[in-house]
Amino acid sequence: MTPGEASSRRARTVAAYVAMVAAAVAVFLMIRARGVEFPAPPAAEEAHARAAGGEDTFARVLLSLALITVATRLVGSAFQRFLRQPPVMGEIVAGILLGPSLLGACWPAAQAFVLPAAVAPHLAVISKIGVVLFLFLVGLELEPRLLRKQPHATVAISHASILAPFLLGAALALYLYPTHATRDVDFTTFALFLAVALSVTAFPVLARILSDRGVQSTPLGTTALACAAIDDVTAWTLLAFLTALARAELAHFTRTVLLLALYVAVMYWVVRPAVRLFSERAERGHGPLSRGTLALVFVAVLLSAVATEWIGVHALFGAFLLGVLLPRGGRLAREVQAQLESFVLVLLLPSFFALTGLRMEIGLLDGVRDWLVCALILLAATLGKVGGTTVAARLTGHRWRPALALGFLMNTRGLMQLIVLDLGLELGLITRRVFTMMVLMALVTTFLTAPAVERVLGKRWGASGS
Amino acid sequence: MTPGEASSRRARTVAAYVAMVAAAVAVFLMIRARGVEFPAPPAAEEAHARAAGGEDTFARVLLSLALITVATRLVGSAFQRFLRQPPVMGEIVAGILLGPSLLGACWPAAQAFVLPAAVAPHLAVISKIGVVLFLFLVGLELEPRLLRKQPHATVAISHASILAPFLLGAALALYLYPTHATRDVDFTTFALFLAVALSVTAFPVLARILSDRGVQSTPLGTTALACAAIDDVTAWTLLAFLTALARAELAHFTRTVLLLALYVAVMYWVVRPAVRLFSERAERGHGPLSRGTLALVFVAVLLSAVATEWIGVHALFGAFLLGVLLPRGGRLAREVQAQLESFVLVLLLPSFFALTGLRMEIGLLDGVRDWLVCALILLAATLGKVGGTTVAARLTGHRWRPALALGFLMNTRGLMQLIVLDLGLELGLITRRVFTMMVLMALVTTFLTAPAVERVLGKRWGASGS
Repeated sequence: MTPGEASSRRARTVAAYVAMVAAAVAVFLMIRARGVEFPAPPAAEEAHARAAGGEDTFARVLLSLALITVATRLVGSAFQRFLRQPPVMGEIVAGILLGPSLLGACWPAAQAFVLPAAVAPHLAVISKIGVVLFLFLVGLELEPRLLRKQPHATVAISHASILAPFLLGAALALYLYPTHATRDVDFTTFALFLAVALSVTAFPVLARILSDRGVQSTPLGTTALACAAIDDVTAWTLLAFLTALARAELAHFTRTVLLLALYVAVMYWVVRPAVRLFSERAERGHGPLSRGTLALVFVAVLLSAVATEWIGVHALFGAFLLGVLLPRGGRLAREVQAQLESFVLVLLLPSFFALTGLRMEIGLLDGVRDWLVCALILLAATLGKVGGTTVAARLTGHRWRPALALGFLMNTRGLMQLIVLDLGLELGLITRRVFTMMVLMALVTTFLTAPAVERVLGKRWGASGS
Repeated sequence: MTPGEASSRRARTVAAYVAMVAAAVAVFLMIRARGVEFPAPPAAEEAHARAAGGEDTFARVLLSLALITVATRLVGSAFQRFLRQPPVMGEIVAGILLGPSLLGACWPAAQAFVLPAAVAPHLAVISKIGVVLFLFLVGLELEPRLLRKQPHATVAISHASILAPFLLGAALALYLYPTHATRDVDFTTFALFLAVALSVTAFPVLARILSDRGVQSTPLGTTALACAAIDDVTAWTLLAFLTALARAELAHFTRTVLLLALYVAVMYWVVRPAVRLFSERAERGHGPLSRGTLALVFVAVLLSAVATEWIGVHALFGAFLLGVLLPRGGRLAREVQAQLESFVLVLLLPSFFALTGLRMEIGLLDGVRDWLVCALILLAATLGKVGGTTVAARLTGHRWRPALALGFLMNTRGLMQLIVLDLGLELGLITRRVFTMMVLMALVTTFLTAPAVERVLGKRWGASGS
């Protein structure tokens, strides 16, 4: 067709199009002219679904999500680039900066804009779903070979790295209980919580720090990862019991423990073989998992979480255990991780950091005494973790320097600690003031990990045998 | 080491381990014995964060999510396998079955168990986030080459396929307004909504049906996809105006339209080039996108949605437009789609189906007259879509059979129609009764698509030229 023909054809099409639209508008106007004469319709047959302000809240939820995501990513990248810290540290700090500790103290209107009171309950659900899925991913990341057939030395170091801070935490409770507990919590529960909270090591952040330096496969790296894995499983088991204890009367406690044992037995002897079969079937395919498979894994995580919640321990425990039981190394685990991880870390967890920041308020620490208590907590946590690990590592044959490095590595607490503290606050075991102190402790210990190890071993971690 | 040595070493480790734990327990008991003598702590310094029942609600949210995901997947797979329907049809039906139409009518306690009243608001936020991200993905899926440089015939068919059902919808309003509208909505808005609602074609479901039969690249397939793409853009533009009209006074309406024009201009001349630059940078990498990139895209979707919501049109419009503007074919679009799609379809959208099912209640249609109205809506929708498309296709040179097949393809409404209806219900434009009728219409028209085309063209769609 020549350009002339094309343009004349085009002109005809445009003309026809305009005529069609004009005719349609005319017909619509005729219909309208008839319709508007109608009487007002009878009373509404039912209240319709227009919730007052509901739409507005939804826009605010979207806006809060956007602002929180931007803030956590920015501070996270800055921490990674300028401080050589894992980004999660920056994300946690971003959450704190957005809360009453900084933004709320300087500019309350801005804090209320970023996270209005009406939005917080919705973000809470999003953040909790995020943490449940995150714990599942943490369980999935634990290599069972890290837990089984370890040299005896590793098992000994790992347990020492739990027991020392555990006992120091309990001892600390003697000092803190009369002044910093609430009326609702008895000493035993308070002491146990403090003990467990001080013994946490964050497997994910530790794994991240080690792989950032490329030393995750050195003897030091594998020992640290194995210890952290054992620590994680132990800490979550202790927490499961503790939650049961805090929630229930003693009579119920026995029932809860029995149910928990039953649940673990069912998971191990029924769910695990079933998952294994399912996973072998999934091996046959290629590429991303089908949506059905992904849905099944997701449902399994949710149901396992609900089961533990109903037993009386926390939903997080069920999600974690399911992650541990999933066979790894195969396509199922790899693809589930690939598909879930970005989404959980990018879209869901930032809300958790923001809500943690909202609960934490540095202004609650008033006077020198509170800051001294905060320092004491930091001292007990570090002394327990670093000291316990180092001594056990030395006794089982490591040289002093690698032993000390291992101690500092185990002192990484990161996000895992925050999840434990959040649980404590939710159960009413600690006050917001103690919560704030413990979050500070978690940040400082995690922050110190990389520089401390560098100082002990020199710049090249990888060069160190142990 | 010999087996004997190993076992003796093992015995020693176990003994040491037991001694260590026993010592720790003893120390803890000593600490506890001292601590429990302490006086009860002073009054709590602040109300702590234990929200009454908050945890329980969260467990119910998880359980509801799990049950809804299972139900939608099961019915979806059944529809695909036994009825050769796209799974999304089954998922929609699953949502309806879980609601008051079936489960609630037969067994109200079970309905309340699956979706308790306390859980619904939280699922609503999850489902809305899901729909926003879904509309973004729909925009992303539209090929701009489908929209540009189309043969004039395609443009004409597409517009006829909108205008005919649009006018029939407006005419239908004449009949429905006096009996089935509410007092809150004036005739013009009601008529416009009905008109737009009848003209929707679901691009995603259509694309799915065509690719299921492997005919997406035949002349018939590409024409259908191009028409559906133009339909989608037109329908959402009309809906944007309609939302503005329904929400605002006339004075505000002008302002809204001006703001909307400004927003579209900014998106086209500022955001689009920026996104293009960003996308070119992303091309350089390989494999999955970095988390920072994913977060940036996510934030952009949220902000675009919030912007349109604040302008006075719906958040969905902003998400859709951003999807349309994102450059496609490259790594950015492909990876964003790969990472978001499963998550949105598997984890977020099932809540939308469940909530739609909750709002729809077949029991609201009482008597023969309501069912006749329902049939009338179905007739107007089908006659408008199929008739308008077929006549236009015939006039622009297609033979009768392919023209009729194209008509039935454009009659696919699926999920897109549900989103539009949900919007209407939320804005108070239609009652739950009309909502129920229109959902039934959407289901029937979509359900008919594949069998009708098969009947017109014979089993082998692909063999048909047009």
